[in-house]
Amino acid sequence: MCEANAYLRTEEGEELVLEAVDRVLPHEEGLLLEDIFGRRKIIRARISELALVEHKIILERD
Amino acid sequence: MCEANAYLRTEEGEELVLEAVDRVLPHEEGLLLEDIFGRRKIIRARISELALVEHKIILERD
Repeated sequence: MCEANAYLRTEEGEELVLEAVDRVLPHEEGLLLEDIFGRRKIIRARISELALVEHKIILERD
Repeated sequence: MCEANAYLRTEEGEELVLEAVDRVLPHEEGLLLEDIFGRRKIIRARISELALVEHKIILERD
């Protein structure tokens, strides 16, 4: 599978938000993350960086 | 490998920008895309959506 883990970058470092993320979609409150099992999480953030071979999605607060 | 293909969403549909993308980084002119071979492309766009199981990164013009 080609999922990635989503991290929120903060001043303290990177905080894991959701593992095994498949989809990231725009949402009125920020982003909708959906993992490979269909579990969803909404977060007020934007996608900052991707490092897919490392399975990382880096999010930042708007 | 867990790379994805980057597409630019336009009014006409989705246009392939770069295959086998590993990294996407912020750049002063938009985004810097780097594929798994280290080839780079800069595009004035932002990340709109991800569908990683489908190996898709969807970009949109700012």
